[in-house]
Amino acid sequence: MPKETPEEKRRRFLETAKASISNAYATEEHAIIQAIDAYNEAEKVRNILYERLEEWYSMYFPEARINNQSTYSKMVIAIGSDKKKATEEQLKALLGDKAKAVKEQIGRSIGREPNPDEYSAIRMVAEESESLFRLQDGLDAYLQKSVKKIMPNISYLIDYKIAAELLAKAGSMQRLATMPASTIQLLGAEKALFKHVKFGTKAPKYGVLFKLPQISNANRRVRGRLARLYATKISIASRADGMSKRFIADKLKVQLDKAAQKIYKIK
Amino acid sequence: MPKETPEEKRRRFLETAKASISNAYATEEHAIIQAIDAYNEAEKVRNILYERLEEWYSMYFPEARINNQSTYSKMVIAIGSDKKKATEEQLKALLGDKAKAVKEQIGRSIGREPNPDEYSAIRMVAEESESLFRLQDGLDAYLQKSVKKIMPNISYLIDYKIAAELLAKAGSMQRLATMPASTIQLLGAEKALFKHVKFGTKAPKYGVLFKLPQISNANRRVRGRLARLYATKISIASRADGMSKRFIADKLKVQLDKAAQKIYKIK
Repeated sequence: MPKETPEEKRRRFLETAKASISNAYATEEHAIIQAIDAYNEAEKVRNILYERLEEWYSMYFPEARINNQSTYSKMVIAIGSDKKKATEEQLKALLGDKAKAVKEQIGRSIGREPNPDEYSAIRMVAEESESLFRLQDGLDAYLQKSVKKIMPNISYLIDYKIAAELLAKAGSMQRLATMPASTIQLLGAEKALFKHVKFGTKAPKYGVLFKLPQISNANRRVRGRLARLYATKISIASRADGMSKRFIADKLKVQLDKAAQKIYKIK
Repeated sequence: MPKETPEEKRRRFLETAKASISNAYATEEHAIIQAIDAYNEAEKVRNILYERLEEWYSMYFPEARINNQSTYSKMVIAIGSDKKKATEEQLKALLGDKAKAVKEQIGRSIGREPNPDEYSAIRMVAEESESLFRLQDGLDAYLQKSVKKIMPNISYLIDYKIAAELLAKAGSMQRLATMPASTIQLLGAEKALFKHVKFGTKAPKYGVLFKLPQISNANRRVRGRLARLYATKISIASRADGMSKRFIADKLKVQLDKAAQKIYKIK
């Protein structure tokens, strides 16, 4: 075999480096991590724009009492630039049952009408807010499909978005699959854990897992135990998802539910 | 005149209160304040989503070197789910002159192709980013038109968006029109001013006005003097916009430019 020149060697190393970078992002798990982060950011961003919309539009229609963000945006779009002219039928098309109440509120409103330029400006903000809802829905649909594919076991036990967050906090399936249950239990509680170690504050009992309604809705005294239980089963499921690639979650789920029922009974 | 019953009195007071609330938002200046805040928030929000887009898409196409946010989003949309299949013509339609360079980068890319689900998810993020650009453009157009209408004098002297920010910081035309020049000079520097008073840090020289390129691009030593000059002329213009409603800005502008020229010459 002829000896490699330094130039050839350099090129070979570069190729290896490129290939390893390429491999590092070769699996869809990294897209899931990006998608759950994008989903959470879209939520934050939507809230910023929605608060602006509500503050702005309450100048024209301060009486509106609508608690649902999407319904509110739809109302701004449905009402048009002269709210007195909006018919109940027009309102009904977008607002459904709410139309009648809104029409009555319009009747006794003390807000002035926006001029056409103002209205088209605020309408754009309402439409952007709606568009961000659609973005979230789209990312949600992607997450549901991809998480079930990449993490069939974990997502059989817990909500797919929470599974995606665990993956994002761990950084990769490889890392999640090799984590002890105690680490999984505290994923997302890194700050609190650090404070505990450094300043002796109370030790955290859960991080991301607190988002599970099965834990957050439970009695305060058993939440820690539940988090521990879930973390244990998730860590077994993550080995199956990340290494053996076998589906074992049906059996795990039976064990999990049984053990959880016992914990719920503790007074 | 018959005596008012307590119930009539209560109703009369309520009507007065309603009318005064209604009056407080009767003028378009409040829409301008909302619009400039919405514009700045849209910018912040767009940056959050854009950073996500870039981080995510660099998984598939790490070689892309595009400094313009809008061009980058357009590229993600133009390339489609299989970048090797994107023709130079397709790219040209959205990217113009950049198409050739992008096509070459695609040829030697080490990034994998996204699967169709991944691509449609990331494409939604790119489209949202584009949509936020359009929102900003729309709000910008509204601001240009309305600021020129409500603040013809101030916006003759300085950029309309900066005029809108001064109005937003002041809270109303009424308040802006009665502010001394020294207050206008420091609008938007409230925090720094507070620190100065409380902790004896350096006194701020400008707030919002620093956004004027005529000030920020000037020699560091004369910026304070320029801010003072601009604030003085703006305070005169704001009286004309808020009270006398006469157009005097053409004369003011001549004085302003002449005085500014003198300051620029200071070494």
